[in-house]
Amino acid sequence: MTLFSRIVKGEIPSYKCAENDKYYAFLDINPITRGHTLVIPKREVDYFFDLTDEELAEIMLFAKDVAAAIKSVFPCKKVGMTVLGLEVNHAHIHLAPLKSEDDLDFWKEKLTLPAEEMQEIANKIFTAYTNI
Amino acid sequence: MTLFSRIVKGEIPSYKCAENDKYYAFLDINPITRGHTLVIPKREVDYFFDLTDEELAEIMLFAKDVAAAIKSVFPCKKVGMTVLGLEVNHAHIHLAPLKSEDDLDFWKEKLTLPAEEMQEIANKIFTAYTNI
Repeated sequence: MTLFSRIVKGEIPSYKCAENDKYYAFLDINPITRGHTLVIPKREVDYFFDLTDEELAEIMLFAKDVAAAIKSVFPCKKVGMTVLGLEVNHAHIHLAPLKSEDDLDFWKEKLTLPAEEMQEIANKIFTAYTNI
Repeated sequence: MTLFSRIVKGEIPSYKCAENDKYYAFLDINPITRGHTLVIPKREVDYFFDLTDEELAEIMLFAKDVAAAIKSVFPCKKVGMTVLGLEVNHAHIHLAPLKSEDDLDFWKEKLTLPAEEMQEIANKIFTAYTNI
């Protein structure tokens, strides 16, 4: 079972931002910026483009709503999106609020935020998501 | 009219990799790696997540085929995807073959390839795309 499947099952705790029956969103534990969120399919698929056509469409519509929630909590020009996927073998989309393109720079030093702030951010995004 | 609309209309030349009635793919002129391709909607939309639900699904399925073509020309672990969008106000997806996550590092020095090599790469991807 992948790390992310264990997160979906609640075996590993996560800062939940959004969920439906097939997709799950939670804060990246080493965020590149406040609001940096991961969107995943609950089904275990390694390579993003191995998702079925239906799943690709569904996960993008889910990500669109999560992005809107992020944007409402962290005012920004746009929410950026990246799929890398060489470190965890469970497809995932990174979403992060962009004030400049550097805000999606994965090669700069990551943030380490206190658990209380992570929980507060997740709660705000979750509330915004449920109100979309 | 955006820079990318002028490219779609052929007013500005591009190294075409794939096309259908609503979407277009061409080589990034300053690639981060060989095979770095941009996927755009022909309709002018600035923010990626302002695409309609139908367009979001369609562009991802188009990108999936372009990614498969890139992967067949440039053998790699996965094709990565990024949407930044603060520099050109016409939504676009970056696709690039990844051997390591650093291959999607937009903050390292870009490549400058001779026109002949760019054309050859585009032709290979276009041929692979039309054979999918």
